Amino acid sequence: VTGSAAGTGSIAGSDSAATVDTATCGRLRRLAVPRFPAGLATPCLYVDLDVLDRNIAAMQATMDARGIALRPHVKTHKSVAIARRQLAAGAAGVTVGTLGEAEVMADAGITDLFVAYPVWAAGPKAKRLAALHARAQVIVGIDSAAGARGLAAAVARSATSLRVAVEIDSGQHRTGVTFDAAAGVAVAARDAGLEVIGVFTHGGHGYASGADRSTAASDEVRLLGEAAARLGAAGFTVSLISAGSSPTAVLSAVAPVNEERPGTYVFWDRQMVGLGAGEPDAVALVVLSTVVSAAVPGQVVLDAGAKTLTKDRPAWLDGFGALPAYPSATVSRVYDYHAVVWIPPGTPAPALGEVVAVVPNHVCPVVNQFDELVVGRAGVALERWPVDARGRSD
Amino acid sequence: VTGSAAGTGSIAGSDSAATVDTATCGRLRRLAVPRFPAGLATPCLYVDLDVLDRNIAAMQATMDARGIALRPHVKTHKSVAIARRQLAAGAAGVTVGTLGEAEVMADAGITDLFVAYPVWAAGPKAKRLAALHARAQVIVGIDSAAGARGLAAAVARSATSLRVAVEIDSGQHRTGVTFDAAAGVAVAARDAGLEVIGVFTHGGHGYASGADRSTAASDEVRLLGEAAARLGAAGFTVSLISAGSSPTAVLSAVAPVNEERPGTYVFWDRQMVGLGAGEPDAVALVVLSTVVSAAVPGQVVLDAGAKTLTKDRPAWLDGFGALPAYPSATVSRVYDYHAVVWIPPGTPAPALGEVVAVVPNHVCPVVNQFDELVVGRAGVALERWPVDARGRSD
Repeated sequence: VTGSAAGTGSIAGSDSAATVDTATCGRLRRLAVPRFPAGLATPCLYVDLDVLDRNIAAMQATMDARGIALRPHVKTHKSVAIARRQLAAGAAGVTVGTLGEAEVMADAGITDLFVAYPVWAAGPKAKRLAALHARAQVIVGIDSAAGARGLAAAVARSATSLRVAVEIDSGQHRTGVTFDAAAGVAVAARDAGLEVIGVFTHGGHGYASGADRSTAASDEVRLLGEAAARLGAAGFTVSLISAGSSPTAVLSAVAPVNEERPGTYVFWDRQMVGLGAGEPDAVALVVLSTVVSAAVPGQVVLDAGAKTLTKDRPAWLDGFGALPAYPSATVSRVYDYHAVVWIPPGTPAPALGEVVAVVPNHVCPVVNQFDELVVGRAGVALERWPVDARGRSD
Repeated sequence: VTGSAAGTGSIAGSDSAATVDTATCGRLRRLAVPRFPAGLATPCLYVDLDVLDRNIAAMQATMDARGIALRPHVKTHKSVAIARRQLAAGAAGVTVGTLGEAEVMADAGITDLFVAYPVWAAGPKAKRLAALHARAQVIVGIDSAAGARGLAAAVARSATSLRVAVEIDSGQHRTGVTFDAAAGVAVAARDAGLEVIGVFTHGGHGYASGADRSTAASDEVRLLGEAAARLGAAGFTVSLISAGSSPTAVLSAVAPVNEERPGTYVFWDRQMVGLGAGEPDAVALVVLSTVVSAAVPGQVVLDAGAKTLTKDRPAWLDGFGALPAYPSATVSRVYDYHAVVWIPPGTPAPALGEVVAVVPNHVCPVVNQFDELVVGRAGVALERWPVDARGRSD
């Protein structure tokens, strides 16, 4: 598998296709593959509107039934149109990962925004944060006293204080403080003039191969609870206890958690299906791609390369995407504009010129490669929606 | 390393930092890191104009000295401004990977275009190819009779015939036919009404870990020569014998090759330095990124994640980028907006809020994440150049 991860291995590198991969592909075979709309050029992204709306409604219904606020992360779709559908279905607001995403949403009138990220408010970002705070209801993440002081300085001349939430590390070990350090950061934030409203975490360790998603989810609940208790003991009113990650969102939607921030659930993807977090027939987005070469025996080449599918690949998953219509095939190597698809001897292969649907491993960075989503029903393209916050990593 | 490849491993996954990585970082330490221009928000791309111009001039001088045409691949920079600098330095035209890139260049008046890709001219791409052919001097790659017939049909009503070149597989086993199949494809193309002008290849196997770049380069030269001879024997006038790949460009610039198509050499990157193809002080592009979190011991977190650095990582290289100023550090995990940088105990770490330069593993997909390049000299930002063909994978 190492060779295929590098995108430089020989096609022989794919004959080690893991069992989990075959199983995932087999499950994805149930996915409805759209008829290719003749007016489109590949590669492009196709979103099934019925499936999208089902996913939005299902997550909302689950959270409604538990009395938990759903604040979807828009980094997955980066689309105002989809954020509006989530809000219309009952979402309490949206989550963003960057000031840039927040600005795009605010420009569209979506103003209840949680920047669930330890924004470092220096230079132009200080001014941008102040401007955003003046026109939207913003919550910002903090995980250090210095970061909190930067936020406070940025909004020092604002009419209202800025609301912040302390990020807790619930086991992913990425950002966030331990629960017993939460009160210290909160006190520093309060002393700097910020309004501390609660705590949040991202149970990203629930994505790991072989990990018990339930354990990650209970880590989220337990450690958020501990952190909230420490804040309470330090005199804070804790109104926000927010967890989030598509694999753990449903499992961690229990008290004292009162908000969930999943993103990928709107589309799901190959990784999520492989983890059992999403069902194959809930995959709402596929990459449409054309077979451009069959010159090298044993493989075909698609026009969806690394600038489309990306090289995102968890270690437990073989290849860079799944072809539901060709479950034996492996996307063994990707280059900027080429995906080499290894076809095991004796199994069906797509023909030269055929348009195939590819389910990406991780949908979030794939959407970020495109300016628009082609949206349709029952395989018929209806309209194009801009990926409004495409590229807004700032 | 498997864990860090997945972006989900523990930070312990990085303690296996390969020797080659340390060596690469050590060499990159000589790279001039720009002072951070205060008016910029991170993450952003910074290009050192002096280094860029040196790279352009050096490759041009090498090819000029050998009497070989240089036709740089614009997929690396996707920038009209940089393409113009390459042409002003003496490039014979430009290479593109997609019709979209060709259209962007043609819109800017850059009309000598080699689409070095087996374009499948169906649906809207047929119309777009015809329109491009009408306003530019286009060469298109072919590696199948069916693909050639599609191109011919697309331009059937054009005033002039379309020039094509047959792609040869020189060992990468991606696209391209074997040298002894080249004449068959050429005859089919001629019969369909296309003008076959020669052969081309991409010695991409020169990127592989441990591969002898010289062997890959001589594969290119030898197999292009064989293919050209077969075309000659079949009655074709072979005016184009084109090789290309930044690691092999100089090595394969010998007769009968008469054109080279490297792309990455304008910026170089961590992978190219690791392969010995580029010198550390020839790295012209870095990602500027801010340390946003130091909450988890033993690491810091940058705001340049997978939507900036991408997850491109050859198997022989540890981590997702190099920090020249912190050569012991490893970018061990990347998520959409986070890069976790593992700091070995007892070694220097960047401070919270510090802006650091990161040399990406593979620069091409990184540039494609951004709308603009910040361009400067001696660490002082001078202007912003659009990434004109950003996202044009179609």
